[in-house]
Amino acid sequence: MTDTSSDSRPAEAGAAVFTADVVVVGMGIAGVCAAIEAAEAGASVLALEGASGPGGSSAQSGGEVYLGGGTGTQQALGIEDTVEDMRAFLTAALGPNADEAKLADYCAGAVEHHDWLVAHGAVFHVKLWDTPTWMPGDDSGLMWMGERAEPYASLARPAARGHRPPEPNFAGGHLMAALQATADATGVETHCDVRARELVVENGRVVGVRATEFGAEREYRATRGVVLATGGFVDNDRMLEQWAPHQLGKEKISDGRDDGSGIEMGMAAGAAVRRMHQTETAMLVIPRLVVGGMLVDGDAQRFINEEVYPGLYCHAAVHHRPGPVWVIVDEKGIEEVPEGELWGMQPMHAAESIEELAADCGLPADALADTLRRYNAGAGSGNDAHGKSATWLRPLEPPFGAYPTGAGGPETFNGLPLNAQGFTLGGLHTDVDSRVLDRSGEPIPGLWAAGRCTHGLHGEGYISGTSLGDGSFFGRRAGRGAAGA
Amino acid sequence: MTDTSSDSRPAEAGAAVFTADVVVVGMGIAGVCAAIEAAEAGASVLALEGASGPGGSSAQSGGEVYLGGGTGTQQALGIEDTVEDMRAFLTAALGPNADEAKLADYCAGAVEHHDWLVAHGAVFHVKLWDTPTWMPGDDSGLMWMGERAEPYASLARPAARGHRPPEPNFAGGHLMAALQATADATGVETHCDVRARELVVENGRVVGVRATEFGAEREYRATRGVVLATGGFVDNDRMLEQWAPHQLGKEKISDGRDDGSGIEMGMAAGAAVRRMHQTETAMLVIPRLVVGGMLVDGDAQRFINEEVYPGLYCHAAVHHRPGPVWVIVDEKGIEEVPEGELWGMQPMHAAESIEELAADCGLPADALADTLRRYNAGAGSGNDAHGKSATWLRPLEPPFGAYPTGAGGPETFNGLPLNAQGFTLGGLHTDVDSRVLDRSGEPIPGLWAAGRCTHGLHGEGYISGTSLGDGSFFGRRAGRGAAGA
Repeated sequence: MTDTSSDSRPAEAGAAVFTADVVVVGMGIAGVCAAIEAAEAGASVLALEGASGPGGSSAQSGGEVYLGGGTGTQQALGIEDTVEDMRAFLTAALGPNADEAKLADYCAGAVEHHDWLVAHGAVFHVKLWDTPTWMPGDDSGLMWMGERAEPYASLARPAARGHRPPEPNFAGGHLMAALQATADATGVETHCDVRARELVVENGRVVGVRATEFGAEREYRATRGVVLATGGFVDNDRMLEQWAPHQLGKEKISDGRDDGSGIEMGMAAGAAVRRMHQTETAMLVIPRLVVGGMLVDGDAQRFINEEVYPGLYCHAAVHHRPGPVWVIVDEKGIEEVPEGELWGMQPMHAAESIEELAADCGLPADALADTLRRYNAGAGSGNDAHGKSATWLRPLEPPFGAYPTGAGGPETFNGLPLNAQGFTLGGLHTDVDSRVLDRSGEPIPGLWAAGRCTHGLHGEGYISGTSLGDGSFFGRRAGRGAAGA
Repeated sequence: MTDTSSDSRPAEAGAAVFTADVVVVGMGIAGVCAAIEAAEAGASVLALEGASGPGGSSAQSGGEVYLGGGTGTQQALGIEDTVEDMRAFLTAALGPNADEAKLADYCAGAVEHHDWLVAHGAVFHVKLWDTPTWMPGDDSGLMWMGERAEPYASLARPAARGHRPPEPNFAGGHLMAALQATADATGVETHCDVRARELVVENGRVVGVRATEFGAEREYRATRGVVLATGGFVDNDRMLEQWAPHQLGKEKISDGRDDGSGIEMGMAAGAAVRRMHQTETAMLVIPRLVVGGMLVDGDAQRFINEEVYPGLYCHAAVHHRPGPVWVIVDEKGIEEVPEGELWGMQPMHAAESIEELAADCGLPADALADTLRRYNAGAGSGNDAHGKSATWLRPLEPPFGAYPTGAGGPETFNGLPLNAQGFTLGGLHTDVDSRVLDRSGEPIPGLWAAGRCTHGLHGEGYISGTSLGDGSFFGRRAGRGAAGA
């Protein structure tokens, strides 16, 4: 039921009007899921993508989707899980101030969402990656996201919930290619190189999008609804300065097109925003190495269980501790890291005594020696002050090594920049039905949004898999809502 | 040149229109300074105040105004200061991400601003309060705000810059009464019990304010400009939830009317906002007691020089450290606090050994003992790890005492709630001329703003005196701008 087709697109420059039931802006994970759902609900769907091909930052990501409560993949691996445990874990790990209403729906719907993703092209192998990492170097379909680490293990029964595509490391492209193929097959028409500029609002209702294609004006009319799925704003320094200045000048985790345009378009139509200062934080550290050692801050103090999800200790290191933060390990700890996970990285400093190492790192020597003494005592008694599991706990012995983190201290390591990479977590205020809300909390007629142009599940914490997770989950709801389903 | 007067105000309910050159909304420090400047520039001025009398939260505050660079009061006390030192201190203490452009103008203009305030009724006695406190208990006209404490003492030559009215403790009422009297004498007409509801925008220009007086409609037309000076939003839980959820449920530092209305009115007219998640943080601790002891976090670690401005260690304790945060002192330390500053507060826990005290406080005993050992060693050698001055540094000896802070741990003490009191620091985006900017950075014609409904000087830090300081300084600029001066 569409009056558009690729053939109908005018070749010459000049204003042109396209019409569909639903117009989706941005074809990352939120947009593609919205488009599929809208099309399957019987709507004609036009999807606009500013880049020359779909996928966005999602296609360049690790590809993890955080799902649980007893998914098919979990069950096939014999992992027991409940909605309540998943929710308790995420409430703590994404908090404080996680979005409780969204979390409740997200967790309750996770099993169904897993099956929907699989039915629409996602592949999650029945294979578990069992050690701490940013991204498995193989085709494992499930990974831990720190669920077994204290304090989380005491809050919720641990279950591995990081579902991922069958590719090593950056596996997002696999997932996005599959979903895009489904969208194409479902009749979604995707226009690439089309950059949305502003929403068309008539009589208080969003009825379309004005866009530009290589300088030529395009107007996309939506008879039922518009879905914004344009991603975050980490690539927009003006917006960073306005909302999240701590992230200015840091490495950007994005495809280069997370320009905040959807947030700006929504705000211009009266939308509220929230959590705009929150960012995901990652440092150049090797989780498998960190978990066997100590993370210490500028006072030479440990501050967290090194076994938690790396994003959580990176956030704590960068935002909540005095620098420089170092990873302190011993020779055995380095040797224990599988070669493929070490990326050839040798310590920046090495020393026979912990006091020497402290001097090399610019840390107070007495304090580091005391921290080591307490760590080793805890390791000896099996009672770590931060609750580290026996698996990763043993006394550290000379010679010692130190790796910088980018949270204070050296700014490069092995020629790579060390700083707090990240992307933004705040955005348009949406409800659990993905409707965009105005500043008084009322839905803006005709407008839905999902993904990182919205505020998502997150409070102050971040766990990988929750962006592709909430983007796909609430993207689907946006698509159904816009289609009037 | 006004066509309004008290006599002209209609007594009966019903729509009524008032007109003046400049309409000021809110009569705290920013509003009253804007009104005075506008009136002195020859404009007719109508000032609206939602409460039954002017003064707002400013009148209930400590009354400090942060000024320096060699003010008359500083000179009379023999305190040398420069604009550069003031700026270097504030850049560090209000940062990271303080507003550099506003800070530069503010510091460059501080001597003139001091003289303007004095010429318009402010009184700063030539009398220095020389020890750490939230608010002096006498009529001292100048106080330190931690300028002598490391790391600040190494960044800028220390100078006392907290100028204050001649009243003990909450001295803001003295300052505000004087400024309001000046405004009255200058011909400013203040309408109390008038609650501004929305801006009147015509042809893209703000030309007035719609308001309510005991339910009756009022329209205030401004032929030259409108100044928003309505204060922050700590009293608006809906806005807190949207922008600064960490402050929800905490004690509010305000007159009860910091409802964010000016921010909402500005946003409805297209204004941008910034720094909306930033809040000032205060805990129920006695600075004179803290400076003689140790602030330790839940890991029993010190984290800051206890000599810095209390707002800074409160912020660090609440936002950047694991709880519970305790103040650890010894008997001598309690005895050294002048009786009038101790508020009769005895420690919650007392013990002969530091290990016993740790157990009472729920802190790791070994770690607290080690922290004490290092503190005492530093005190013995005069080389404190956090740079505490010799004045406040001596080894702590048994018996020890511990006071809770509200950053984790007990929630009440002596019947008083212990939590992170605060107010909001974010608001409308204004330039150095106090013009309100839209999301593309362009001034909104006809609209100015100042005080805590704007984002002010502040990044992530806060020093008392900078709210009355930037409110009065940029309030004056708003008044001049709105008057077309």
